[in-house]
Amino acid sequence: MERIPILQMGEFLLVTIQVDMHDRLAMTLQDDLTNRIVKTGVKGVLIEISSLEIVDSFIGRIINNIASMSRILDAETVVVGMQPAVAITLVELGLSLTGVRTALSVEKGMVLLRKSLALSPD
Amino acid sequence: MERIPILQMGEFLLVTIQVDMHDRLAMTLQDDLTNRIVKTGVKGVLIEISSLEIVDSFIGRIINNIASMSRILDAETVVVGMQPAVAITLVELGLSLTGVRTALSVEKGMVLLRKSLALSPD
Repeated sequence: MERIPILQMGEFLLVTIQVDMHDRLAMTLQDDLTNRIVKTGVKGVLIEISSLEIVDSFIGRIINNIASMSRILDAETVVVGMQPAVAITLVELGLSLTGVRTALSVEKGMVLLRKSLALSPD
Repeated sequence: MERIPILQMGEFLLVTIQVDMHDRLAMTLQDDLTNRIVKTGVKGVLIEISSLEIVDSFIGRIINNIASMSRILDAETVVVGMQPAVAITLVELGLSLTGVRTALSVEKGMVLLRKSLALSPD
């Protein structure tokens, strides 16, 4: 499979990461996602990673990059479904995902995004 | 990755198929999904297949099986995001997915499920 699908769920975009990321797939995802944010004008992106059992500094950086790109395009990113072992590894790698919000499930992530959008100035 | 994640989106479950299916993965998905339907009591399941560019009789049968199992557990299945080439192949393979509803996007699939649930007797 050459593309990670980006699903529009009402006012948010949902990306479920299930496959091992490699350079080209990550680039395609960044391209696709930034294009979709601009095209749809959504204000929130959910990155679902419950399938990831192992994480490395590459994936950590990709998640960080996606969050930064979304922020510049005026959309907030919430990482959802992180497994305990992944949280441990990320911190051990020195990647504490500063500036990226997290939630335990897609539903909780959506609640978080809705609350944060309701509080935003516009 | 050993599991396809099943995400709860309000009153529905969402399964995004991104990886090549093999026997054991399909079995795990069937197990996980039927358990989740029973546990959560949802009435609708969305199977998102926009990443599938190639489909064979095995995948076709799996989709059919999932739909039949869900129906027995009182949940309706909608297959969403099918690519044109996949539709062509499925029909050519003689798998016209009778009894499985389809929609072009997750959002349209949700509208379809909501409508069909509103019309159902209970």
